[in-house]
Formats: sequence, C-alpha cells, structure tokens
Amino acid sequence: MHDVILNEKVLAKNIELAEHNRGKLREKGIFTINLISSPGSGKTSIVERTIEGLQGQMNIAVIEGDIQADLDLQRLMKFNIPVRQINTGRSCHLDAHMVKHTLPWLFDQGTVDFLIIENVGNMVCPAEYDLGEDIKVAIMSVTEGDDKPIKYPSMFDSSQFLLINKTDLIDYTNFNMDKAKTNALKINPHLKIIETSCTSGSGINDWIAAMTDEKTRKA
Amino acid sequence: MHDVILNEKVLAKNIELAEHNRGKLREKGIFTINLISSPGSGKTSIVERTIEGLQGQMNIAVIEGDIQADLDLQRLMKFNIPVRQINTGRSCHLDAHMVKHTLPWLFDQGTVDFLIIENVGNMVCPAEYDLGEDIKVAIMSVTEGDDKPIKYPSMFDSSQFLLINKTDLIDYTNFNMDKAKTNALKINPHLKIIETSCTSGSGINDWIAAMTDEKTRKA
Repeated sequence: MHDVILNEKVLAKNIELAEHNRGKLREKGIFTINLISSPGSGKTSIVERTIEGLQGQMNIAVIEGDIQADLDLQRLMKFNIPVRQINTGRSCHLDAHMVKHTLPWLFDQGTVDFLIIENVGNMVCPAEYDLGEDIKVAIMSVTEGDDKPIKYPSMFDSSQFLLINKTDLIDYTNFNMDKAKTNALKINPHLKIIETSCTSGSGINDWIAAMTDEKTRKA
Repeated sequence: MHDVILNEKVLAKNIELAEHNRGKLREKGIFTINLISSPGSGKTSIVERTIEGLQGQMNIAVIEGDIQADLDLQRLMKFNIPVRQINTGRSCHLDAHMVKHTLPWLFDQGTVDFLIIENVGNMVCPAEYDLGEDIKVAIMSVTEGDDKPIKYPSMFDSSQFLLINKTDLIDYTNFNMDKAKTNALKINPHLKIIETSCTSGSGINDWIAAMTDEKTRKA
C-alpha cells in the first residue's frame, strides 16, 4: 500500500473486476472461497483436507497464488482435479484482474462446483483485494501467537470464517485459545471460528460440513 | 506492489531516503539491524533475547513496526530502553521515509549503539524496502515449512543473516532442517544461518556473538 491515492483508485478498479468475476462464477454455479493467511499457517494442508472432504460430493478446482514457484500446485497434482498456478511476481497478493484472466481456463474444465483460491501468504494486502469470491476464510496457526487479530485486524475483519489451525501443537506453545478467539471476535463479531489440525484431523469434519452448508445456502 | 512503474519510482525514492538514514545513523555510531519475517515467527521474542544478550555491553534502542496497536512495544517496556512504535496503517512494510521521521526522536535518547528495527510481519514487501540499516536479518520458524525460501525468495535474497527459529518445536513438525538450509542457500549462498529457540535459549549465544562481531566490524 505504497500510495494512498493510487491505492484508492486501484482498489476501486479491483472491486469492479471482482464484481465481474463474482457474476461469472455464480452464473456457472461455482461457489468460491478465498483462503488468506500468513506464510506457513497451513493453507495448502487445509486445501488438501478440503479436497479430500468434498471430493465425491462436488467437483473442485483450485487456483494457487504464489510469488514464485509452483510447489503448492505440485502438492495438489495427486488429486487429479483442475489446478492453476498464478505467480504474482513482486505482488504480495492476488487481485481480481489476475483471477479474471484465469476464468476462461476454469470454465474450460467441465463442471466445477467449488473453487478454492489459495492466496499469497500475507496477512495484510490480500485482505483488501476482493477477488469475486463468495466467502473469505482467514487461517491462523497456534504457533503464530494469540495477539495476531489485534496486530493484523483487516484479515479478520474481512473474513466470514476463521480457522485456528495446527491445534495439535498447542501444548508446546503459550497460545491462549480463549484469548485468540476473544481478540478475533472483538475485530469481527460475525466471524465463525473452527479449530483445526491437518495433522490429527481434528475439526476438519466441522470445516467440511460448514463448507457444504455454505455452498448449499448460496446455490 | 500494485503498479510496477509507480513501484520503481517509489523504490528509487526509498533508496535515496535510506542512504540518508544510513549516513545519519553511521555518523552517530549506531549499528542498525532490520528484522524481517512472516507474522508469528518469533520476531519480538528474538528482540527480547537480543536486548537481554547485549544489554550491559551497549546501549540499545528499538523501533517497532506494526500495522496497528502497540503490543510489541508494551512487551519491551520492561527493559527500560528507548522504544518507539511506528504504525503503518494500511502499509504492509516500513519504509525509509517512516524511519527518517523517527530519527530525531532516536537522536534525542542519549547514546545509542545498537538499533533494532522490527518490521511489519510480512515476508514479501519489507524485503524490498531498504530502511538505512547495516544488515537485514530474516527470521523463519520451523513451524512454517522448509519450502519458504523457494516460495518467498526476496526476503532470503536481501538478508545477510537467517535465523531459523522455534527449533524447540521441530520434533512436532515435518520440517527438514537440511532442506530448509539448502533452499535458503540456493537463493543466497552468502546467508549466515543460525538455528535459534527463544524458549530453550538454544543458539541465542551464537546470535548475540554474531551481532557483537558485526557491530565491531562496522565500527
């Protein structure tokens, strides 16, 4: 966010493009989630568990946002579903323009019901860029500290769901779950919070049920 | 990095201001480190251990960069040293202009030998903004995954030191230390890597010795 005036213009244009994307995605019956977190909070593991949980029930596609490389895309190849990489180069977030250019590819993949967009690992700028998704999902891990909502409020403020991930590690940290939730709900009282661990599988069923439910409600 | 042309201009101006800051800081004999990492990798704990390790040997001051709030500043009040908060608002990184405006305060604090700047938690943009520091120190924690250097190369590329932190948690993760180091050194073969844990204290003495050494060499 290097220049506030430029930024307002860029954000206004982004909202316009995001609305375009949302219109197109809904027209095709594609429910879209935008996953936002700091690097290393377990986004790609959450993507893997989500695919495992929803596969069979619906057709899933993934857009992977990364500064550089395609390691996450490679991790997802085993699922044999449509996955597309967007490399943002020096940009610290995806934007609606990048996603717009990926839609022709997406609409070429046959029936897709559920689109997962994994954003660049960053708690700040991705929260400000609507991509045309139905819901934003924030992820934080217990190893990051329970003060994150206070220090990086916009990610928590702009999301509908918060996954507090890596709960299997909580006993080895000084993370206070109640404090984390209180901090997050202070920023956004409507946030639906689910505790998850991709290692133990704890909470994943709740998360999958929530996504099935959200998809049904939006259909 | 919303617009490449604007960005080049902003970065060119930033380099100019950073050189100004570096000149002023060196004139006063202040050795400056700029700590960069993703949110929750333990930057503030490293700051605490650094103050504990260097206090008595030299006069330390800290500049705390955060989007919002002053939790980190509050954590450091116990040391009774000069600490100044910079809230960046919507900016995902500190820049040389912000630091320039903090220098009059800093030069008002009596003798300072060692300045720690804790950047906003973000692996992407802080790496591109020289603040006028002597060295950049990247921090990643073992809970973030050993693939981070490949996915976020610029932080590793622009730093002189890398702390691989939270090593006390390594047995509970699938983090591969050799792979992480190989990945980091592939990006930047000159990187000096130290494994640290602020919980067990492991590696902290090496880190403190390295900083004492760097300060002496630059004096």
